[in-house]
Amino acid sequence: MQRGWDCLSLFAERLQDIPKENIRIVGTATLRTATNADVFLTKANQILGYPIQVISGEEEAATIYKGVAHTSGGTGRRLVVDIGGASTELIIGEGFEPKALTSLKMGCVTWLERFFKDRQLNKANFERAIEGAKQTLAPILEQYQGLGWDVCVGASGTVQALQEIMLAQGMDEVITHAKLKRLQKQAMQADHLEELDIDGLTLERALVFPSGLSILIAIFELLNIDSMTLAGGALREGMVYDMVKELQQDDIRARTINSVQTRCQLDVEYGDQVAATATSLLVSCGNESWIKEPHAIALLEAASKLHEIGLTLDFKKAGEHSAYLLQNLDLPGFTRAQKHLLAEVVRRYKDQLTPLPSQHALSTQSAERVLRLLRLSVIITHRRQRDLQPQFAVQCEGNSLTLSIDKQWLEAHPLSAAELEIESNRQSDAGWPLTIQAV
Amino acid sequence: MQRGWDCLSLFAERLQDIPKENIRIVGTATLRTATNADVFLTKANQILGYPIQVISGEEEAATIYKGVAHTSGGTGRRLVVDIGGASTELIIGEGFEPKALTSLKMGCVTWLERFFKDRQLNKANFERAIEGAKQTLAPILEQYQGLGWDVCVGASGTVQALQEIMLAQGMDEVITHAKLKRLQKQAMQADHLEELDIDGLTLERALVFPSGLSILIAIFELLNIDSMTLAGGALREGMVYDMVKELQQDDIRARTINSVQTRCQLDVEYGDQVAATATSLLVSCGNESWIKEPHAIALLEAASKLHEIGLTLDFKKAGEHSAYLLQNLDLPGFTRAQKHLLAEVVRRYKDQLTPLPSQHALSTQSAERVLRLLRLSVIITHRRQRDLQPQFAVQCEGNSLTLSIDKQWLEAHPLSAAELEIESNRQSDAGWPLTIQAV
Repeated sequence: MQRGWDCLSLFAERLQDIPKENIRIVGTATLRTATNADVFLTKANQILGYPIQVISGEEEAATIYKGVAHTSGGTGRRLVVDIGGASTELIIGEGFEPKALTSLKMGCVTWLERFFKDRQLNKANFERAIEGAKQTLAPILEQYQGLGWDVCVGASGTVQALQEIMLAQGMDEVITHAKLKRLQKQAMQADHLEELDIDGLTLERALVFPSGLSILIAIFELLNIDSMTLAGGALREGMVYDMVKELQQDDIRARTINSVQTRCQLDVEYGDQVAATATSLLVSCGNESWIKEPHAIALLEAASKLHEIGLTLDFKKAGEHSAYLLQNLDLPGFTRAQKHLLAEVVRRYKDQLTPLPSQHALSTQSAERVLRLLRLSVIITHRRQRDLQPQFAVQCEGNSLTLSIDKQWLEAHPLSAAELEIESNRQSDAGWPLTIQAV
Repeated sequence: MQRGWDCLSLFAERLQDIPKENIRIVGTATLRTATNADVFLTKANQILGYPIQVISGEEEAATIYKGVAHTSGGTGRRLVVDIGGASTELIIGEGFEPKALTSLKMGCVTWLERFFKDRQLNKANFERAIEGAKQTLAPILEQYQGLGWDVCVGASGTVQALQEIMLAQGMDEVITHAKLKRLQKQAMQADHLEELDIDGLTLERALVFPSGLSILIAIFELLNIDSMTLAGGALREGMVYDMVKELQQDDIRARTINSVQTRCQLDVEYGDQVAATATSLLVSCGNESWIKEPHAIALLEAASKLHEIGLTLDFKKAGEHSAYLLQNLDLPGFTRAQKHLLAEVVRRYKDQLTPLPSQHALSTQSAERVLRLLRLSVIITHRRQRDLQPQFAVQCEGNSLTLSIDKQWLEAHPLSAAELEIESNRQSDAGWPLTIQAV
């Protein structure tokens, strides 16, 4: 308790300059369970000068879901998993609407004390920890299986730490059962928790790594989960989005794009024009018969609307700057892998065409095709007004594109015609045949 | 002429979407001298749809000076040198006021044809080219020496190309006579202009490199110039600043800082507070007895006012982002070396203290001291309001600083007190003794 109070007095120094209405403080599982919570809370409230509100497990789950919904793109029914220190929340929801909210008294700290008290990383301890988690999960199994879900999302520290280990070891960002079992094997190579040495595992997370891993493995096995990605937010973000009414908008990705466009003073109308052109090219190519992943269109639109962001820094190396900005800005609604692809696509929105680096947001072929469509759209829309862009049509056959452009427009625009010719050479040299046809 | 007209028709395509009042087209030396200039101009005006205005040598010199004055910081009398293709302008001025304006019929293209017609890079050709330039300069020598100057600035392509070669070869950004002679030696290692192979020399500049170099050497020798830096603008910028009235402000650096603060939505009042704190620390240390270079204070102020710019991207790695932005933004009034130092200082404005990389804007010791003062000011001003910052005083002895801070304030701010203690360790570990004293 003393360490907790000491820590809170440091926080109190920072709180004093923040407007009262911007502060909300909640306590979760530990303060719900501790028998002497009132002793701690009385002094803590006094130190902070603000009351700590201890929220129920259900309210915690609901707020976590808000945090996930406000920071995740895509559609469909979601299963959200948040493994905390003393509780684990499981939520099923659609859009902003939770359908099932559960908080279980099982967390990476309590599971450490219960199953790894001897600090041994042996098979027996792991098996008991996983089995214990399954028993705790059992009561909700039927209801959750009945509701079902399309995608599964992990939130907050435990899942994030696991994902960071995977990335540090060169795996992609998608968490699967096979990868979790690989991490368990690595952990079992150390006899003892204090000897644990896994690439990408930070010191502060090492202690609760085996227990958190066990709980997540149990969830994957019992609920038969294929894969899980990491959410951009959880409890904290849920609280923030709750407080800021103007952030409450349905389409997370649209909100993110709007916000970046405003902050960086981008030309919104032109972004829309490029996006419309790119989309119409994609439609002519037959949509998903040309780019398989249905979510590729959202990435193509985002790249179209944000590709000029680097111009806010300088017109020299604008593509480089665009990439740096998109890679480093917080972009709710886009996963880490999607941000990376967006950055690499906008880096190449014009001029020289270098090969895309490896990425995990789309198949290599689809990513290349997104880039091709963006580059063509940028040239076609060069005059930045819809009524000044040419009539065009596109045909595709395998990887080959034929772009037909109005002959008179080409004659009236010798520079754009030259750029299209150069672009045809660049794409063809990259192994992506492109023919420009004057019609 | 045909190649010129062809090129202008490509430009014409881009011009059509730019508002008429934003377009101004001027012609210089070649069009002043060519006997059939009217033939070219008639057709050119027709192609562009706008008249090309051929300006006199004196107007060219005056506009170049405007471009330099609007993009250069610092005070004192300037000598500006601009070596073009068919003319060389030399201007002496103070602030925005030119005192002498000269345009000489000597340029890197005409000198190529006159002295390197055989394309031989031998000593004789160089000597004749340098001697020829000196003769052309002779008539203005007395007037220019009489007026005198404090700093010498080179503008536009020829000087920029020479500076880029020096930087590519690992030299610093300051152009000196010794470095120019080194480049001449390198050039003479190739027999023939077509064999010229110098690190950092671009293909498009290679042809006029020996002639431009000869003219600049002549200027250095005849006018007895110690060193020259590169201006951030010349004729083009002079025309632009002439057209945009709101850009006409006396203090170039202040205008740059204001503009960045506005575009990136920085907290201006807080920037002023940090700058005032940093400056008062410097004054207590005895100003130039502690940091020798008088222009260091302008860099300390700029760093103070702009260090938080990275927060516009993300609070994670804010220092890194600040460095990236300052390195890549166009910052009129700051030289390339100064931008580099600013970036490296703001990269380290808080947290871990890594050694500054080598730089050419200040002595190593002065740069370190600027960084120390910035870091201390950031901690002292943490509450972001002048009336909430502590009473403080600083004493320096050699490289050792003792910062005395109000005891009661430290007691009321345990987190800031802890940060000051950590900072004391960090600076001391870096070899910069820092003692914090509660008084």
